[in-house]
Amino acid sequence: MRVAVDAMGGDFAPGEIVRGTLLAARDLGAEFVLVGNEQAIRAELPGGKLPEGVTLHNASEQVAMGEKATRALRKQDSSLVVGARLLKERAVDAFFTAGNTGAAVAVALTVVGKLPGIDRAYIAVLMPTTEGAVVLMDGGATVDCKPRHFVEMALMGSVYAKARLKVDSPRIAILNVGEEDAKGSKVVKEAHKLIRQTDLNFLGNTEGDRLFAGECEVILCDGFVGNVALKVAESSVKFAFKLLARELRARPLDRLAGLIIKRSAMKRLARDLDYSAHGGALLLGINGTYVIGHGKSSDTAVHQALRITVDSIRFGVVDFIRESVPREVAGLDKDLMQEDEAPTQG
Amino acid sequence: MRVAVDAMGGDFAPGEIVRGTLLAARDLGAEFVLVGNEQAIRAELPGGKLPEGVTLHNASEQVAMGEKATRALRKQDSSLVVGARLLKERAVDAFFTAGNTGAAVAVALTVVGKLPGIDRAYIAVLMPTTEGAVVLMDGGATVDCKPRHFVEMALMGSVYAKARLKVDSPRIAILNVGEEDAKGSKVVKEAHKLIRQTDLNFLGNTEGDRLFAGECEVILCDGFVGNVALKVAESSVKFAFKLLARELRARPLDRLAGLIIKRSAMKRLARDLDYSAHGGALLLGINGTYVIGHGKSSDTAVHQALRITVDSIRFGVVDFIRESVPREVAGLDKDLMQEDEAPTQG
Repeated sequence: MRVAVDAMGGDFAPGEIVRGTLLAARDLGAEFVLVGNEQAIRAELPGGKLPEGVTLHNASEQVAMGEKATRALRKQDSSLVVGARLLKERAVDAFFTAGNTGAAVAVALTVVGKLPGIDRAYIAVLMPTTEGAVVLMDGGATVDCKPRHFVEMALMGSVYAKARLKVDSPRIAILNVGEEDAKGSKVVKEAHKLIRQTDLNFLGNTEGDRLFAGECEVILCDGFVGNVALKVAESSVKFAFKLLARELRARPLDRLAGLIIKRSAMKRLARDLDYSAHGGALLLGINGTYVIGHGKSSDTAVHQALRITVDSIRFGVVDFIRESVPREVAGLDKDLMQEDEAPTQG
Repeated sequence: MRVAVDAMGGDFAPGEIVRGTLLAARDLGAEFVLVGNEQAIRAELPGGKLPEGVTLHNASEQVAMGEKATRALRKQDSSLVVGARLLKERAVDAFFTAGNTGAAVAVALTVVGKLPGIDRAYIAVLMPTTEGAVVLMDGGATVDCKPRHFVEMALMGSVYAKARLKVDSPRIAILNVGEEDAKGSKVVKEAHKLIRQTDLNFLGNTEGDRLFAGECEVILCDGFVGNVALKVAESSVKFAFKLLARELRARPLDRLAGLIIKRSAMKRLARDLDYSAHGGALLLGINGTYVIGHGKSSDTAVHQALRITVDSIRFGVVDFIRESVPREVAGLDKDLMQEDEAPTQG
């Protein structure tokens, strides 16, 4: 098993990316190919030497975090494009990048390409819940989703949740403004009808306040909604703890308690809730195992993301999707699946 | 100044609603009309007597929290419909309900009606930020918003923020998946162009992780997105504190610290972050001051919501909107404002 890693992508690249890859090489039983500027990568290696199981593939250019996707696509010798090309050519079994998400999605679609029969790509994010975890998708790859895109997500998300969360029949719900079937936007109402036609374990609608309740394994939404939801979740928690920290300075006894918990409980909690610690999000719909990490990925986040990457190869998530999903999509009601206009890339 | 209060709406009605109204009658300098079942209301009054400044208006029916809007509309003698009718007939200056939001919006549109020249209604929610507060709208009244609806929200939200947050030129942003102008769904891209044509202090796009940053006073989004964002924000904070509570049980010293903060800092924080404590959300676009409270409103939440209600009358928010906004909307580019299809009620 070989995994290409974009050593130059992410806010803390190449340092944290290289260190995370070295951690992964020790315990994941796979080979890793660090893609990027050779000198910059070597500078991060202890003694400048590559350990066993890690190789280096030079790429002269780099895609910046704020760079436009259209510009990134033209950087043919960037670590992002070169890594994606290694996946396309089957020189590796998977590719991981913590770089610019917009560029990563564009490069995946253009360089690696979509699975036959699948119309778009979707970011499948693993979120912690009180009961374990839930796959939320789309995290922001496709905005203006049509009903058929919800079906693609439902089918692919179910495969991923089976593999990742070890459940036989993942429960699927649409993120909506109410629980009743008739609630929501036109698109989600249509999506509802379509998913009802499948054999999936479809529960119907769920709401934003049930996201962490652990009532289902897959939550579906448009990439616009998913992107907002993920970012709001992350910032709400930070905001709440900021206010807590302020309250903990208000009175002497609180200050003492604050000192205690900051060194222990709060530290463990921050680690548990760290968006990046949940690591890689699979970009489903792409013809290969393509994993996107949080821009702020630390070495442990990279390690965790590479664990998800290796597990996904091992479970054969993409192979299973390739063999089953397009056929199931093709079997659905043509009228309902009909599209009036092309979706937008987010 | 007279304010009708739906005494039967909300999870804790009529008790908390009546008690909250009595608190408001003491310090808000307005008269309150409790609308609902006379016996049930009297049972909540100390000695069964109405204090000065509070009257009672009987309504025999009640709209349940889970009841469908279409059914609620047929309950002509419900506290919700009767209260709305008092506003329509100008027997009162404002109406407040903590009942079923879907029914409250439907009754507002049907019984009270929209402002001339305004196409839809939008829930303007006041959210706390690190710098003060921000008006987020739409909180869930209108899904499938068209670009023109974003303009209506921008204009009305600016008026509300001026009055409520005491700023001369409220900064307005669209909630989007990225900051660049070209990001997002088709609708928000068009909305962007339209709002640029106004004289408003429009900053462009903001993202879900900037919601609490206090960088603007008005954040605009479709009712679907706003509803999800508000519910995710609420549940993320609850989820984080649930995990913190678990961590605080893990080790003896943490347990001690936990005991201390639960009685002080956490209590104050829970109060600050309590969604309901931020009280009423103005339903903008309606031809009258119509305020919707959280279903779980306690007496203090009702008190706070009635403060927002009275302030909104005093500031003349709806009058100001009536006089200025429709003219501004009418002056915008006809091509951009054109609608291909009717919006959906959420």
